[in-house]
Amino acid sequence: MTHVNRQWLINGNPRGRALSLDDFTLHDAELARLGPGQVRVKVEYLGFDPSQKGQMENIAGYSRGAAAGDVMGARGIGEVVESHDPNVTVGAKVAGMVGWQEYADLDARAVEVLADDDLLLAHLGPLGGTGLTAYFGLLRIGKPEPGDVVVVTGAAGAVGSVTGQIARIAGCRTVGIAGGSEKCAWLVDEVGYDAAIDYKNDDIKARLKALCPEGINVFFDNVGGEALNAALTRIAPFARVVICGGISRYEQETLPPGPANYFNIVFRQATMQGFLLSGYEREYPEARRRLTEWIRSGELVYKEDIQEGFDNIPTTLLRLFSGKNFGKQLLKL
Amino acid sequence: MTHVNRQWLINGNPRGRALSLDDFTLHDAELARLGPGQVRVKVEYLGFDPSQKGQMENIAGYSRGAAAGDVMGARGIGEVVESHDPNVTVGAKVAGMVGWQEYADLDARAVEVLADDDLLLAHLGPLGGTGLTAYFGLLRIGKPEPGDVVVVTGAAGAVGSVTGQIARIAGCRTVGIAGGSEKCAWLVDEVGYDAAIDYKNDDIKARLKALCPEGINVFFDNVGGEALNAALTRIAPFARVVICGGISRYEQETLPPGPANYFNIVFRQATMQGFLLSGYEREYPEARRRLTEWIRSGELVYKEDIQEGFDNIPTTLLRLFSGKNFGKQLLKL
Repeated sequence: MTHVNRQWLINGNPRGRALSLDDFTLHDAELARLGPGQVRVKVEYLGFDPSQKGQMENIAGYSRGAAAGDVMGARGIGEVVESHDPNVTVGAKVAGMVGWQEYADLDARAVEVLADDDLLLAHLGPLGGTGLTAYFGLLRIGKPEPGDVVVVTGAAGAVGSVTGQIARIAGCRTVGIAGGSEKCAWLVDEVGYDAAIDYKNDDIKARLKALCPEGINVFFDNVGGEALNAALTRIAPFARVVICGGISRYEQETLPPGPANYFNIVFRQATMQGFLLSGYEREYPEARRRLTEWIRSGELVYKEDIQEGFDNIPTTLLRLFSGKNFGKQLLKL
Repeated sequence: MTHVNRQWLINGNPRGRALSLDDFTLHDAELARLGPGQVRVKVEYLGFDPSQKGQMENIAGYSRGAAAGDVMGARGIGEVVESHDPNVTVGAKVAGMVGWQEYADLDARAVEVLADDDLLLAHLGPLGGTGLTAYFGLLRIGKPEPGDVVVVTGAAGAVGSVTGQIARIAGCRTVGIAGGSEKCAWLVDEVGYDAAIDYKNDDIKARLKALCPEGINVFFDNVGGEALNAALTRIAPFARVVICGGISRYEQETLPPGPANYFNIVFRQATMQGFLLSGYEREYPEARRRLTEWIRSGELVYKEDIQEGFDNIPTTLLRLFSGKNFGKQLLKL
């Protein structure tokens, strides 16, 4: 008996333009015999992240080399239904780079066996790549000190919401920038940001001036564009500007101008720094341990936006780029 | 008998536009009685630097607060003709913030007594602010390691020429970007850069690609604009981008766009950092000692562009912004 494995393939490398549903093709593959050392994972949940667009674009030194006809890459969680490795048993819940498909045959050493408890899905959010990105980006690049003013863009997103909370735990005053009054209310009322700026309705520059009269010590940017430029006008001496993402840029046809105020890093003796999560791999266990403690103690809250259905996978990715998601974007197959 | 002290005053704060001769007014002041603890310096040489425009603009946290009617600020060298301080004798050669005037009455603690030898004028160049800027900017912010590829803009300028030589002494391969074949030939033949790019005639991007196939480890920027953007496309993993100056921006009516490729600092896990020389004041003596050794041993060469005449002072400043100076811009009164 052959078994069909439904997959979403990519049609090429969508550089310098917005993603659309035409970038993906539905494909019925046949499940092959499981290879030695592999496990077969029945995919149950997929995680979505703006960096998936960067991976599709195949940027040198960043992408794993996505090409037309490949299964779309994605991290997800599923159940092991067949195993050729004694350390990963059938029935185990695992996380890994499963891709957009119903079944993923993966090297057993490349999956992470998870406890099947109430934090299972957190491994695609605050305990997964986005949480770890917030953790290392803020603590190692932003270097917050108690009393610092920390401003975060994309503050209601999966990375931004965790960033603000770690900054608060580190004794900082936090200001989040997000789109819309619902997200801003959530930031202040539930996430615990000290203040929020609604970029869709507020004058970012004027609000930053009012909320940060002494300047910004750490600016954690997930968005780029006008918010980055506005923040650069208000950085404090020796500020750290963490460039984590630039979602405002990902969908543009031509590369938009950089921040006109970049030269303020001279007048403020400031640092603007980029980073990739992969540089901290050896420290993931310690970071996950601390993030888990904060979740268990209620200091760190998070929100999931769970769509459903294999057919809706591409549409769900597009939600990220129109700001539709509210919380970590997931999909249940 | 009263004594006239000719001065050049500034007419205001020339923000967001090019400097012109109309920004300065000639003024005949009367020399007052020298105050307690002061020395009177007969100004002999003035140094010129693009940052003087920034001082005139009165940028918060950067400028000393220049206002209309002030004597134009400038560092210079002169001879003490009267002294109310036992540590500074009449006849001594001193350096200090003398300003654009024939006589400067300065606090004795604010002048530096110099040996009257062949390195006297070097205190306005490689042993002065520009040399120290190159020294601390490259070594502390750029953190060059032997074998690194170091690219410098404004490479034939007072800062850039010293930067490239310190990088070479530190065991790096150096590429200088400058305007015109004469400057480029000087960089390679006399300053000791491994290669030069003529931004007026070469395709910067193509030349950087050819000269730095493995990427740029340290980019030391005195210019901004297109060169910065081109360099950002070629930075190596963990590159350090030192923002020292942005002379291409100083004369613009509106703030030009920032570097569209700034986001490469994420893909390359790179750092872009600004600095002000004043942060290293306690280390000046050690830096001057090393710079002096390198000059004496012939490892560090420099060039002076000496204009003459009190009336030509404003014109001489304008030379910097049109790229006319070749070497450290000085003027002999």
